[in-house]
Amino acid sequence: MSTGSPTAPLKVIKIGGNVVDNPEALTRFALDFTRLEGPKLLVHGGGKEATRLSQALGIPTQMIDGRRVTDLATLDVVTMVYAGLVNKRVVALLQSLGVNAMGLSGADANAIRATRRNPVPIDYGYVGDISAAGVNAPVITHLTQAGITPVFCAITHDGNGTLLNCNADSVASAIAKGCAAVMDVELIYCFEKDGVLTDVDRPDSLITHVTPEIFADLRAKGVVSAGMIPKLQNALEAISCGVKSVTIKNAANLLSDRGTVITA
Amino acid sequence: MSTGSPTAPLKVIKIGGNVVDNPEALTRFALDFTRLEGPKLLVHGGGKEATRLSQALGIPTQMIDGRRVTDLATLDVVTMVYAGLVNKRVVALLQSLGVNAMGLSGADANAIRATRRNPVPIDYGYVGDISAAGVNAPVITHLTQAGITPVFCAITHDGNGTLLNCNADSVASAIAKGCAAVMDVELIYCFEKDGVLTDVDRPDSLITHVTPEIFADLRAKGVVSAGMIPKLQNALEAISCGVKSVTIKNAANLLSDRGTVITA
Repeated sequence: MSTGSPTAPLKVIKIGGNVVDNPEALTRFALDFTRLEGPKLLVHGGGKEATRLSQALGIPTQMIDGRRVTDLATLDVVTMVYAGLVNKRVVALLQSLGVNAMGLSGADANAIRATRRNPVPIDYGYVGDISAAGVNAPVITHLTQAGITPVFCAITHDGNGTLLNCNADSVASAIAKGCAAVMDVELIYCFEKDGVLTDVDRPDSLITHVTPEIFADLRAKGVVSAGMIPKLQNALEAISCGVKSVTIKNAANLLSDRGTVITA
Repeated sequence: MSTGSPTAPLKVIKIGGNVVDNPEALTRFALDFTRLEGPKLLVHGGGKEATRLSQALGIPTQMIDGRRVTDLATLDVVTMVYAGLVNKRVVALLQSLGVNAMGLSGADANAIRATRRNPVPIDYGYVGDISAAGVNAPVITHLTQAGITPVFCAITHDGNGTLLNCNADSVASAIAKGCAAVMDVELIYCFEKDGVLTDVDRPDSLITHVTPEIFADLRAKGVVSAGMIPKLQNALEAISCGVKSVTIKNAANLLSDRGTVITA
């Protein structure tokens, strides 16, 4: 059980459905993740698998603005898929590679407490929002200092016995912000592109560094795509909450410097 | 986070499907569990819910001698139901009652490593057997000493990336035996009867105390039912491995003395 240097920053890494859904991509990512030094934790999605299970069970899937409307039947589905199937699959894989992974939902050890989203104007059902204050930084720090690598799914609880379906990007961001109060934290979003591109069809149009000033300039010039603006705003918000850096990169480039780094 | 007296024995408590499947019974049990003092951990089943999900997905359920034959599709089902749905439901409930519960499979923090059962003479598929040596007593002790109450489902791993479906009674027994090497342990099996009865239809026929000598005597007289013999043999084996006591009782009697206590 290696915890790296005690002063090494905590790396909070988020992988999406395109990685967890593809056994080859997941194994390649896991091998790279294994080689990352210092304390680290993983947050994973798994939306495609949840949609497949819903379909097989005849439960309609309704998405609004990319968020899954979560009635009680759908809450069972995402709890089974995220906290059960995907989480344990990732944990067993990492364990086989020598990473002392421990799968967690937000309910486990009260690691993340969320608030059910206001049903007005849109009732998303059992969907939760997390503030940095809902993150139990002491328990996460305790585990990482014991050489354990937490693997979080995006299921949390409200503290009153109800599980809530959260967004994995938001879980990663909340954990990073919550832990930034007690240690240095780097947040890394892995997805299927190399980072923020000025032209989504041209990988060589990668923007390697973004600061609040550069973001304002890029936005004024209309260079950043509409889909990337909320991601960059979330990244800048994490920075303003004390996270040292946020990186947006391709899951295949975890160990390389290629990507977009957002700093203050 | 109260850990009770540092010399208090660890209570390993197993609940079966009849409790986790019934929201009222589960809540009543959880309220009693909350009041148990000292370090404790819970092991739960969930077989009925797994059979329901298999049926809904059109996956045939095959049981041999009470064990579920676990092909890859069934492994996904039990991982979703035990490690996801049931485990997180129990954890969220306990958290709402003030118990700092943390749900775990055997893969998590490598808490329990199992061996896939020999496919000869019967191929059970992804079914695992656990020895006391497969139990990571240091990590379980570490968690309970930190005031955390582990909640184990019966999914484990082989250490090579494969999840395995185990029997919840065997998981509880292995944990108790594995932890007995480093601390005092009491093992408590909760089920739907008051304990070992000489006449299953008469609750007043409860045998309150069993030792190896008493067991031999009861068996010679044909007083113990066939179904209870393996349970008592397992209990006596746990005692011979250093577990201080094994109790078989009704889930509704967790806080009362009523039940069958097996000691050396």
